[in-house]
Amino acid sequence: MHSDLDYALELDRQDGLAHFRNEFVIADPEVIYLDGNSLGRLSRRSAERLREVLDEEWGRQLIRGWNEGWFTLPQRVGAKIAQLMGAQADEVIVADSTSVNFFKLVVAALRARPARTKIITDNLNFPSDVYILQGAIELLGNRHRLHIVHSEDGLTISTDQLKKAIDDDTALVALTHTAFKSGYVYDMAAITKAAHQAGALMLWDLSHSIGALPLALNDCAVDLAVGCTYKYLNGGPGAPAFLFVRKDWQDELLNPIWGWFGQQGQFDFGWQYQPASGMKRWQAGTPNILSLSAVEPALDLLLEAGIDRLRAKSIAQTEYLIGLWEELLKPVGVTLNSPRDYRQRGSHVSLGHVEALRIDRALIEDLNVIPDFRYPDNIRLGIAPIYTSFVDIHAGVTRMRRAIVERLYEKYPIEGLDVT
Amino acid sequence: MHSDLDYALELDRQDGLAHFRNEFVIADPEVIYLDGNSLGRLSRRSAERLREVLDEEWGRQLIRGWNEGWFTLPQRVGAKIAQLMGAQADEVIVADSTSVNFFKLVVAALRARPARTKIITDNLNFPSDVYILQGAIELLGNRHRLHIVHSEDGLTISTDQLKKAIDDDTALVALTHTAFKSGYVYDMAAITKAAHQAGALMLWDLSHSIGALPLALNDCAVDLAVGCTYKYLNGGPGAPAFLFVRKDWQDELLNPIWGWFGQQGQFDFGWQYQPASGMKRWQAGTPNILSLSAVEPALDLLLEAGIDRLRAKSIAQTEYLIGLWEELLKPVGVTLNSPRDYRQRGSHVSLGHVEALRIDRALIEDLNVIPDFRYPDNIRLGIAPIYTSFVDIHAGVTRMRRAIVERLYEKYPIEGLDVT
Repeated sequence: MHSDLDYALELDRQDGLAHFRNEFVIADPEVIYLDGNSLGRLSRRSAERLREVLDEEWGRQLIRGWNEGWFTLPQRVGAKIAQLMGAQADEVIVADSTSVNFFKLVVAALRARPARTKIITDNLNFPSDVYILQGAIELLGNRHRLHIVHSEDGLTISTDQLKKAIDDDTALVALTHTAFKSGYVYDMAAITKAAHQAGALMLWDLSHSIGALPLALNDCAVDLAVGCTYKYLNGGPGAPAFLFVRKDWQDELLNPIWGWFGQQGQFDFGWQYQPASGMKRWQAGTPNILSLSAVEPALDLLLEAGIDRLRAKSIAQTEYLIGLWEELLKPVGVTLNSPRDYRQRGSHVSLGHVEALRIDRALIEDLNVIPDFRYPDNIRLGIAPIYTSFVDIHAGVTRMRRAIVERLYEKYPIEGLDVT
Repeated sequence: MHSDLDYALELDRQDGLAHFRNEFVIADPEVIYLDGNSLGRLSRRSAERLREVLDEEWGRQLIRGWNEGWFTLPQRVGAKIAQLMGAQADEVIVADSTSVNFFKLVVAALRARPARTKIITDNLNFPSDVYILQGAIELLGNRHRLHIVHSEDGLTISTDQLKKAIDDDTALVALTHTAFKSGYVYDMAAITKAAHQAGALMLWDLSHSIGALPLALNDCAVDLAVGCTYKYLNGGPGAPAFLFVRKDWQDELLNPIWGWFGQQGQFDFGWQYQPASGMKRWQAGTPNILSLSAVEPALDLLLEAGIDRLRAKSIAQTEYLIGLWEELLKPVGVTLNSPRDYRQRGSHVSLGHVEALRIDRALIEDLNVIPDFRYPDNIRLGIAPIYTSFVDIHAGVTRMRRAIVERLYEKYPIEGLDVT
């Protein structure tokens, strides 16, 4: 029977990637962690690498560390991320946060289309991206309008609807490739093509995609992209983010933040900013070496597992989860807030319930399950195929059923719960 | 005799702060490290704290770490930095890099004085700050002029010269409080007052001051400041930077990068950016927890030692160094490129020589001394009073004399040396 624990155990036994779980720190095996889409687990290699950076690099080499690999670390880590997204090694660099990188690219893109006034996004986008767009519009003198295409159900959006919004006044189309709430995955090729046909630039936020599913930025001729490294890339809390600029834009676009790490001949200390060639110009200040160092070995693990195999496992696991939902949760009032079709779904599954916030609390406090919650009624169960087991998913769903059937959530207040 | 090693040993014995050196990792006692002004040493507490963050927080608490202290870490660390600079706890936050923070504050300041067109800086400033100013001017439509006050000797500048440049068209005066090259310290009170008398805002870059000398930002009524945490604060390579906004500007000035961590009610996920109150609005993306965690215990050490005691030791040590220079280096062609008057001097001493770059190389490669070099002919000897010993300084100076007298530098090429 599908919802038997034995079936989950059997799926884990058959899983060719199962051994990668041992590469991660599982400090408390009792805790079912289904929030790798918010913060990926610590890998043993990252922990080991950080100890080495402390003891052997910062501690021993001190300033000499810059010449022993630190200076080029943003490029080296960027090149590894590029492998996960169908981009060339010298099209990606790690720098700053996703928000700061998004800001840089938005400003650069709008200035590359000075006669155009329209920016397209949608209401499935992560709010930070929308805020940054609003701020960039204000900064550039309110010459642009932000057109937020409206999803009817708040979970998915049709490619046609987006395409219709793009016109010859559109400077930039900026979307998140996998929607943070529903896990809906956009048609990168079709939307990028539509943007280009209208003469607009296409900027994808890959935060909820990178490391969870294969990407083909070059095949889709994507212009610009950003993303974070602390979700499926397992880079650590607030780890530095990445940005991608397609090769043929690299000489043309300019970082609006003219810091010394983006300067050509940085240590010549000239008095006029001269942007470095290639991706180096997208740096601003000094890169964060400790955090960057933790990112790299975690990436190596993903590359060893292979993004296609990770995607195959992720699909099997989200399908399994949805099967369990159908049998165990749908009958007790839980809705599926993610696409049923795996081709339109990333690696987290969203489940809705009027009492979702209190159920989320009961899962965490009483049942040792860690999902996450997004307003108003959405529980996200994140699957990180490199370490999530089928037994994890089984436990998550069966305990969620228990929280509902046994009304464990009722002891939590309706108002005033902290939802960070 | 002044240049005797015994005298240095005696000074170390009399040093009431000497025991703090044991709080730092001295991986290789043979190496004389005089570059704490570029990258501070690793403290044992920071190393310990990072291991704890890995094992107990990221590794065990996982996403729950955000509610167990990570969210407010930028404020908490900021409050400790505030204690070192004569500011209030809620006037400082840690975020991004110095360059990005400088960008945010420059843009905000220029927009607070919309009718004015002049920005004052000088040619002792760190080039990154000048680049950021140039970029901000371009970004805001080339309505501003950058007036770079010119130091005659490239080492110091008179307060009167700066004051004369400030007029009623000046929007912003942006200077580095301790010059990166010479260690010259500006008269913060007088220059800030002159800026205010003209109706301009004053922005200080404290990167080479913070942790090395007492600052009085509130007493001087400074408007804005930025600084890094990886020099005298010993926060680690590329550690996140801080920014200061005086209380009565906090509601008025706006961060141009509208990220979600600067949003009021961040997890309400509203669709219109609404800047958070207080310093939170100066955040953009997700703060970097690993690096931030390393900064905090290093700050605690400085607070325990006390900034006035650290300054007293720093003065004693730079005076000692200059005494040694006079006796041992001046006779062999080395110039003093830092102010002779300690009141105008930070915590590093710059020494000039036509062969400085090759001497720097010989010190590192042959004599186990790590200073740093700044074009064209400048060797900086950085004193971090919390861990630098008088014996360190003695070794640095006597070995530098040896590099010159024995012409050890001659085996290094004149061209093509890497000066990173």
